[in-house]
Amino acid sequence: MRLENDPDRLLPADPVTRDIARALYERVRALPIISPHSHIDPGMLAEDRPFGDPAGLFVRSDHYVTRLLHAAGVPLDRLGIPGGGATAEPREVWRTFCTHWPIYAGTASGYWLQTTFAEQFGLEEHPDAGNADALFDRLSTVLASPAFRPRALFERFGIEVLATTDDPLDDLEAHAALAQDAGFHGRVVPTFRPDAYLDPAAPGWAERVDRLAAATGEPASYRGYLDALAARRRYFLERGAVSADHSMRQPETVDLGEADAAALFDAARAGRLDAAGARTFVAHMLVEMARMSVDDGLVMTLHPGVIRGHDGPTTARFGADTGNDIPVSTSYAEPLMPLLRRFGNEPGFHLVLFTLDETTASRELAPLAGYYPSVYIGAPWWFLDAPDAVLRFRAAVTETAGFTRGSGFIDDTRGFLSIPARHDMSRRLDAAFLARLVREGRLQREQAEAVVVDLVDGLPRRVFKL
Amino acid sequence: MRLENDPDRLLPADPVTRDIARALYERVRALPIISPHSHIDPGMLAEDRPFGDPAGLFVRSDHYVTRLLHAAGVPLDRLGIPGGGATAEPREVWRTFCTHWPIYAGTASGYWLQTTFAEQFGLEEHPDAGNADALFDRLSTVLASPAFRPRALFERFGIEVLATTDDPLDDLEAHAALAQDAGFHGRVVPTFRPDAYLDPAAPGWAERVDRLAAATGEPASYRGYLDALAARRRYFLERGAVSADHSMRQPETVDLGEADAAALFDAARAGRLDAAGARTFVAHMLVEMARMSVDDGLVMTLHPGVIRGHDGPTTARFGADTGNDIPVSTSYAEPLMPLLRRFGNEPGFHLVLFTLDETTASRELAPLAGYYPSVYIGAPWWFLDAPDAVLRFRAAVTETAGFTRGSGFIDDTRGFLSIPARHDMSRRLDAAFLARLVREGRLQREQAEAVVVDLVDGLPRRVFKL
Amino acid sequence: MRLENDPDRLLPADPVTRDIARALYERVRALPIISPHSHIDPGMLAEDRPFGDPAGLFVRSDHYVTRLLHAAGVPLDRLGIPGGGATAEPREVWRTFCTHWPIYAGTASGYWLQTTFAEQFGLEEHPDAGNADALFDRLSTVLASPAFRPRALFERFGIEVLATTDDPLDDLEAHAALAQDAGFHGRVVPTFRPDAYLDPAAPGWAERVDRLAAATGEPASYRGYLDALAARRRYFLERGAVSADHSMRQPETVDLGEADAAALFDAARAGRLDAAGARTFVAHMLVEMARMSVDDGLVMTLHPGVIRGHDGPTTARFGADTGNDIPVSTSYAEPLMPLLRRFGNEPGFHLVLFTLDETTASRELAPLAGYYPSVYIGAPWWFLDAPDAVLRFRAAVTETAGFTRGSGFIDDTRGFLSIPARHDMSRRLDAAFLARLVREGRLQREQAEAVVVDLVDGLPRRVFKL
Repeated sequence: MRLENDPDRLLPADPVTRDIARALYERVRALPIISPHSHIDPGMLAEDRPFGDPAGLFVRSDHYVTRLLHAAGVPLDRLGIPGGGATAEPREVWRTFCTHWPIYAGTASGYWLQTTFAEQFGLEEHPDAGNADALFDRLSTVLASPAFRPRALFERFGIEVLATTDDPLDDLEAHAALAQDAGFHGRVVPTFRPDAYLDPAAPGWAERVDRLAAATGEPASYRGYLDALAARRRYFLERGAVSADHSMRQPETVDLGEADAAALFDAARAGRLDAAGARTFVAHMLVEMARMSVDDGLVMTLHPGVIRGHDGPTTARFGADTGNDIPVSTSYAEPLMPLLRRFGNEPGFHLVLFTLDETTASRELAPLAGYYPSVYIGAPWWFLDAPDAVLRFRAAVTETAGFTRGSGFIDDTRGFLSIPARHDMSRRLDAAFLARLVREGRLQREQAEAVVVDLVDGLPRRVFKL
Repeated sequence: MRLENDPDRLLPADPVTRDIARALYERVRALPIISPHSHIDPGMLAEDRPFGDPAGLFVRSDHYVTRLLHAAGVPLDRLGIPGGGATAEPREVWRTFCTHWPIYAGTASGYWLQTTFAEQFGLEEHPDAGNADALFDRLSTVLASPAFRPRALFERFGIEVLATTDDPLDDLEAHAALAQDAGFHGRVVPTFRPDAYLDPAAPGWAERVDRLAAATGEPASYRGYLDALAARRRYFLERGAVSADHSMRQPETVDLGEADAAALFDAARAGRLDAAGARTFVAHMLVEMARMSVDDGLVMTLHPGVIRGHDGPTTARFGADTGNDIPVSTSYAEPLMPLLRRFGNEPGFHLVLFTLDETTASRELAPLAGYYPSVYIGAPWWFLDAPDAVLRFRAAVTETAGFTRGSGFIDDTRGFLSIPARHDMSRRLDAAFLARLVREGRLQREQAEAVVVDLVDGLPRRVFKL
Repeated sequence: MRLENDPDRLLPADPVTRDIARALYERVRALPIISPHSHIDPGMLAEDRPFGDPAGLFVRSDHYVTRLLHAAGVPLDRLGIPGGGATAEPREVWRTFCTHWPIYAGTASGYWLQTTFAEQFGLEEHPDAGNADALFDRLSTVLASPAFRPRALFERFGIEVLATTDDPLDDLEAHAALAQDAGFHGRVVPTFRPDAYLDPAAPGWAERVDRLAAATGEPASYRGYLDALAARRRYFLERGAVSADHSMRQPETVDLGEADAAALFDAARAGRLDAAGARTFVAHMLVEMARMSVDDGLVMTLHPGVIRGHDGPTTARFGADTGNDIPVSTSYAEPLMPLLRRFGNEPGFHLVLFTLDETTASRELAPLAGYYPSVYIGAPWWFLDAPDAVLRFRAAVTETAGFTRGSGFIDDTRGFLSIPARHDMSRRLDAAFLARLVREGRLQREQAEAVVVDLVDGLPRRVFKL
């Protein structure tokens, strides 16, 4: 089947509205890409490594893609994911993917893949069992060419800023190498992601705290632990970091005194903190992280509301990020009260709240961001980063919080090749949403023209202090 | 008022999109009806009994219809529902219904009734107080004609498969009679619905377990109880059953060892199991039912999330299914974890999850069905089985799970006459949804043409192993 | 920037649908305004006080407006809100507002303000830093004119009934003065709002109960307390009240016997009731309030589901209603069961349920109102009183409950000047929603014509017994 790449895709059906949307989209189509949160490997850019085969690039390494194949009955080892036994060869994985291509119809992943195939690789046919081998060869050849090295793509994509996500003890050498490289003009900044150092219930927490103390020369006391975290944040800041990212099942916060917190820390170090104690400690540490953000200026981002590794046996065998993370009902207003009562009005403090529970958009996120100067509404994330979900989200928050209290688009991607398709999708949807408001007499065209540029260009710079 | 039956009803407003939708709808309009879950009485078909008067058929026996009359202030006995005192005559009930006909404007029940009146009976006027008696007479005459006997309608409606819902100890004689009847060509299959045998807190559980043991010759021990349930499942399977259906307030599961489960069973038999113990036992039995489905291949369907008999005094007087069942907030990801960790990846296991809580669609159902090969998303059910709700649901799940992880349409009806209107509604909405995606450049026309047929014809056959 | 006030605003994009909507809107555009729930000060009408300066009228006194300025980093004292220190002068406040005007783009408040500026004051430019002073002078002059006195506006707005919200011990003199004034033809009725007298955990409860006893001559026993409340309800009824309004975090109800309730009351009076006891008592009192409504006919309205004063320190300094009330997840089906089992079917009892949690609309509110004759679905409220939210809400409830189980539009406003813009918004949205159903063949034009008038004129009269 011929692959069509509709130039008006995602724009509204009504012709008058579509015309307005098209004009708005044209204003932002070619603006630089600002990506303040992603899971791109900085080493790939530092070393400018070729991407290898299409199966590894588009299938094996993308759990959005593998999960639907798994749902279709394909075992993960047949997708090249190592789990103790033999795994399929890349060409086999690619054939499996092409044969199952119709399962992606209507999905966000299908949209990004199709756009990437059409726009980056010039494909003119949908993948299928018949053309799988030919596509594999063609894509492999293209991927081996100099024009498809990471740095060449970085420039061609028009990326101005790209933030990675990093372990607090990462030495950030790849970031330093890129910053010092006179031949590379992009800005690649690290993000401080300390979850595994904050939660005593996370496997390996005690050793990680030991390594943290060793790395910073701080004693392994509660006070030393806080100082070590602050030191590593400074280390990140000095290397360009703009934010610290946090994930948890529920965004609980509690504001303990130092003595109580130290007692929990000591109990955790001694291996005698129960599950409830660990929860209290991590809730307290979220407030401490906010305090440090107030002090050092790192933007605080929260990504709560998901059961990681829902399929325990598969996670045990194939590892994390294998497609079985499942969202749950989340709330923000009550759990974040201790944190916000203390820091919600602090000048310069930025707290970006993401959600996987759409119900919180109109009920909690927009009211919180519509009052607290520190709170920003994170762009629709993960399962919600798709055309209809984005428009629902936009409609749910705008009437309460307007256009100035969001984070701007966040791609949060692991797929470097999908970055242009994702940002383009977001710009089309911004234009579509604004055009509807113009058509409904709720916004004038001049207002929409200013807003669409601010959403793409102004907001992410202001919110992430870029 | 003249009753108009718009041939383009439910298709999108935008003319270009409407044309696409109309063409898609035409591809599936006349396909056979597959109904893998309903509450139709098989005896009605076996005996080919006439439907009787219109009040009994369209009003008294349909709690979707009676509940709105009750809300309008009409006591249930005035609707012919027996509750200890005098009840209204059918003609009186019908007059009440016709007088209140405007309260159904905009509702799903109103849509089905109007479509049925227009298409099955050729009515050209909306019911009202003035024409109530004439309509009663006219409909009564039609209903008494041979063309309106159940079997004639079954054939005229183009029903290929119809599943009923049955008690585990039902002898399924009506199903056997239909299967052996050379003059009847439809496939009418039973569904195993064991709720009342699994929940020690259900009134009459102990006697039911006694009868189960007596019917199967198994001892009344926990092991005998499991064997008896398995035996009755086999009995259903041999008579054509394809699924086992389960309903509960919250879909909790727990995976007990046999000794613990047996202890709870023995306590329940001795009448000394408390409410918490009963909940644990029924949660465990859900896992056992999954295990049996893995063994015998019956598709497992879950219909959770509703308070049955919310209006206790009315339920005590007029019985169950009198319109006062009210949905509640539901979750799936966490409650089903024990079941899915054990059986979620079992080849051939099918678990269809229905919901009355729309929030779970994008948050939990699509992510679960988008990973576990066993999990399918049940079609919008009960209060959500209506045009806008269906389109919301489709939009909420498709971007994460695509078009292959749903159950296909399920009518779940008690109203035999409404079956064509319900399936037709679903086909129109499938076409409308797909047409929008085509118009928005997210799906090509050829893809939509394949998907619309698969939704109506392929999916229900695969999911329900028909 | 020129301010445009689109005559077709809020009508659907599709031209055919828009034509239908426009015709429906014309049928209700000029109908009298019925406002059965608001927070307008009756003294303002009784004394016919001029509104003063535009900053106080449009900014300082409207926490919908101040909260977005606060989110933009403007401290509340700079908005003229007293909090112990110096506060900004009205002209300064107005300049701040005009400078920040773009933050309201796309919000409900922005829509009402813009409509009011255009239609009431004939403004032809959007506010900005450049025209702030000129606008301040121009609006001040207009507001000082006789045509902009409250009574003149009341008449010009076409308000037929306006309900205020009042303390149970209010003497209602302003209402009496208005009723006796031969020169004023509007109907201004009080609403009984007893929250602070029902919740022992509310600050000052004990003294308030003392004052209640003193005012009614009842003893300060539980029985006397109930009699005193009933007496004050009678006092309100005699002065025209039609409803009693209740707000709480969660709408819990419990039906205690008199002895148990009296014991809790006595413990509360003695200052030894803990938080759990207070919650039980207030849940019981909600059932008592329902009982009194059954007796005296006052419509019972519930506004649950919000954390008041989420930003504790700001509330402590600047008072309540400063923009930091944040909604939370709410449920109705289970918490209201005790109340509804007892009174849900009582003839003449009206219970209007409002929500800030959209998820409850299709899941609980529509099923409850679609069965219980007493239950009505409150119009979208507070954060949900905006174009997209209203259409979502309408779509969520109509398919289950039709058009006859809602409350009709409720403006719930503190901003007298915004009343026409709010009711006009609602009428446009009613027309837009109905026009879509007509265009989709789900409703005939004649039906829509009847429904749109009933929504605006019939429903609020019936539901609020006007």
